[in-house]
Amino acid sequence: MDNKSQHDKTIDRREFFRKSAAASVAALAGTSVLSSDAMADDPAIMHHVPWGQTWGDPVTKNRYGKPSKYEHNVTRRNTKLLASGNFRASIAVTPIQESMGIITPNGLFFSRSHGGVAHVDPSMYRLMIHGLVEKPIVLTLEQLKKYPSVTRTHFIECPANGGQEWRGPQFNSLQFAKGFMSCAEWTGVYVKTILADLGLKPEAQWMLTEGSDNSEMGRTVPIDKVLDDAMIVWGQNGEALRPEQGYPVRLLLPGWEGNLCVKWLKRLEFSNEPWYAKEETSKYTALKPTGKAIQHFYANEVNSTVTSPSPEIPWTNLNDGDIVEIEGLAWSGMGTITGVDLSFDGGNSYVEAKLKGLVLPKSWTRWSYMHTYKKGEKLLLTSRAMDDAGYIQPTIDQEVSVMGVESVYHRNAVETWEVTETGKVNHVQMRTPGGVKNA
Amino acid sequence: MDNKSQHDKTIDRREFFRKSAAASVAALAGTSVLSSDAMADDPAIMHHVPWGQTWGDPVTKNRYGKPSKYEHNVTRRNTKLLASGNFRASIAVTPIQESMGIITPNGLFFSRSHGGVAHVDPSMYRLMIHGLVEKPIVLTLEQLKKYPSVTRTHFIECPANGGQEWRGPQFNSLQFAKGFMSCAEWTGVYVKTILADLGLKPEAQWMLTEGSDNSEMGRTVPIDKVLDDAMIVWGQNGEALRPEQGYPVRLLLPGWEGNLCVKWLKRLEFSNEPWYAKEETSKYTALKPTGKAIQHFYANEVNSTVTSPSPEIPWTNLNDGDIVEIEGLAWSGMGTITGVDLSFDGGNSYVEAKLKGLVLPKSWTRWSYMHTYKKGEKLLLTSRAMDDAGYIQPTIDQEVSVMGVESVYHRNAVETWEVTETGKVNHVQMRTPGGVKNA
Repeated sequence: MDNKSQHDKTIDRREFFRKSAAASVAALAGTSVLSSDAMADDPAIMHHVPWGQTWGDPVTKNRYGKPSKYEHNVTRRNTKLLASGNFRASIAVTPIQESMGIITPNGLFFSRSHGGVAHVDPSMYRLMIHGLVEKPIVLTLEQLKKYPSVTRTHFIECPANGGQEWRGPQFNSLQFAKGFMSCAEWTGVYVKTILADLGLKPEAQWMLTEGSDNSEMGRTVPIDKVLDDAMIVWGQNGEALRPEQGYPVRLLLPGWEGNLCVKWLKRLEFSNEPWYAKEETSKYTALKPTGKAIQHFYANEVNSTVTSPSPEIPWTNLNDGDIVEIEGLAWSGMGTITGVDLSFDGGNSYVEAKLKGLVLPKSWTRWSYMHTYKKGEKLLLTSRAMDDAGYIQPTIDQEVSVMGVESVYHRNAVETWEVTETGKVNHVQMRTPGGVKNA
Repeated sequence: MDNKSQHDKTIDRREFFRKSAAASVAALAGTSVLSSDAMADDPAIMHHVPWGQTWGDPVTKNRYGKPSKYEHNVTRRNTKLLASGNFRASIAVTPIQESMGIITPNGLFFSRSHGGVAHVDPSMYRLMIHGLVEKPIVLTLEQLKKYPSVTRTHFIECPANGGQEWRGPQFNSLQFAKGFMSCAEWTGVYVKTILADLGLKPEAQWMLTEGSDNSEMGRTVPIDKVLDDAMIVWGQNGEALRPEQGYPVRLLLPGWEGNLCVKWLKRLEFSNEPWYAKEETSKYTALKPTGKAIQHFYANEVNSTVTSPSPEIPWTNLNDGDIVEIEGLAWSGMGTITGVDLSFDGGNSYVEAKLKGLVLPKSWTRWSYMHTYKKGEKLLLTSRAMDDAGYIQPTIDQEVSVMGVESVYHRNAVETWEVTETGKVNHVQMRTPGGVKNA
């Protein structure tokens, strides 16, 4: 394969500098609206911008700030295809094609609800903790916040992320294909801290978690997860949770299905058996080819995506010889990302990408690969992540052979962007590496 | 000292659990609006909340989300005391008393400007890089973003943070006393990456950085810092910079004075000598008792504060025997926080606090200490941070003996909260440990 030999070696930053010195300046200057020579001679032109001629806004204008008006297109989005009859039991997805680093700003954090976004008065908020505990209790928000707090960075992902696409691509869009997730810095208390206070009875094996919104979202959580890293959170990226995230309080089960992280949290009840609540029997099970469904399906498996390029971020502006950074995200609900491979031929051969910035457990992890673009090249970009629990993303054929195509949930097979000769990017799926294409 | 013996040993989380099992449940139940017994018997009362009876908002209502209406009081703030004649050349400060973790949400990031908040059209944005470089250039935003990016978590602090208070406390408020700073995850390109591309001439020793707003904020940066970790950033907490932070592009000099991190960045010029621009001669120098002023004063020194309790977060709701988490922030522009000490007697004796969560260089670092509250106790809470550059916060007397009281900038002496018998919290200053008080 051409791509194989071309990408045997990673272009690292050092090489980037060397190559740049020879080639990239010319390329940049060539595409510059104003040539560098003209500008160096006439810096005065830099002063003729309207914002340099007038006073700006007072710093008191926005006591709570908002994005530039020029960013009006970077928003959560929804289509009828994602709405279950209405936009209340629905989802609005995050523009992950525009994401940077590993924090999703609260205004863009994906929003999934079963009965609309509730607006809870914190002074009326109560959390009941009862069942198999020595001291059942009802806590006010103030009492809850007296417990020693922890802050952790974790993603939350809807298990239906990519779930429309078991039979082939539905959305020529990264936001709609993979934007059912976001990542934030959460602040709250470990459930185990509260249980150490209340006293958990030894026979307790399951925890019911229930929301106070009109859907009364209910799910059951095994006690091992509760005592491992389950949190009750009230803080998100340094401020109170947003209403869409369950203000004032939601459950956070790091790495597990988003619907288990019950919002507008009302009640935790401990029992010796699971509840089999509506939302864990009628939904959030995975129908297998045998006709049986998987229940107790919790952790979001290791996954990854290329964010740039993507259908929304094409390479139509690149010139021959440009050195371009291919970027993406990787995540696993089972642990920490240990590596990401990148293929230029739809999964036939892979090279090793680099993990960028903070690499944290059950968090988004950003990765990148420096690539020299050849004008007119056709590529099939596929990423494949690994985690420290020992898992690696399957091919589509591997996943389908086990799960069939009837499940909505937990799709984590590799996916592929087709880069066309003109630099446009299309969402395709390669059932086998480099093989039959579901376009 | 009573406090000394009382706090010889940290109450860690394990101890908290043990003590809680014996005492805290009763305390919590005692202060609960609804008794735990009543609630365990009658869970139906949990259902009589209005948000459980109706549909919530569609997920499509806020494509870009905003805080709960109940959080309307958590905002940036400004007083006439912080405004230089108007609210454009002014500052709006962050409610750090409400901060959690180490991320400041973009809507609350402190906003300092010299000519108001400019609104720059990104399609008209240009960055000129010239002077002692082989290839001077003018970059569009698209060209700038083609460089390989990095993401780093750093605080930005105005060197005047706490600068009103050299002679004593001016604000009985944490937000106004110490809120001239915030911390975020920044995405952009190292200046050294661009310079490797353009070719820096060996005689270049200084970099002028200039903004495109009407104040044309200009400062000079020594080349060592430029080649160390200076960044040109366009991303903040996973989205585009906000207008108040220099949208679309600002300079970031991790750990150095905020005014050096020029916003609405227009121009970088390299030279063999400093510029002595207006903003680094008429301002941002520190007048010493000798009558001479310190120039080239860059890094914000090691510092810390107690965030909870604070004047805004009193202990008036605590009961005798309550175990309460004392929390705070520490930060250093010289490196990584290595430890924080906490005093209950205004700096006479100290115990060791615990660092919480991520500990990153030139970033906010959160710390905490578990304390058993005695009803009626009077405390003088003082924190003292250390960094891996070997610095430790000075006492007020130590700092004043070197700097006098005429400087506005770089005040990093320890500060003290007085906790009164009723749990109210006042901002005081102890000139010597546990000694003469400037109230």
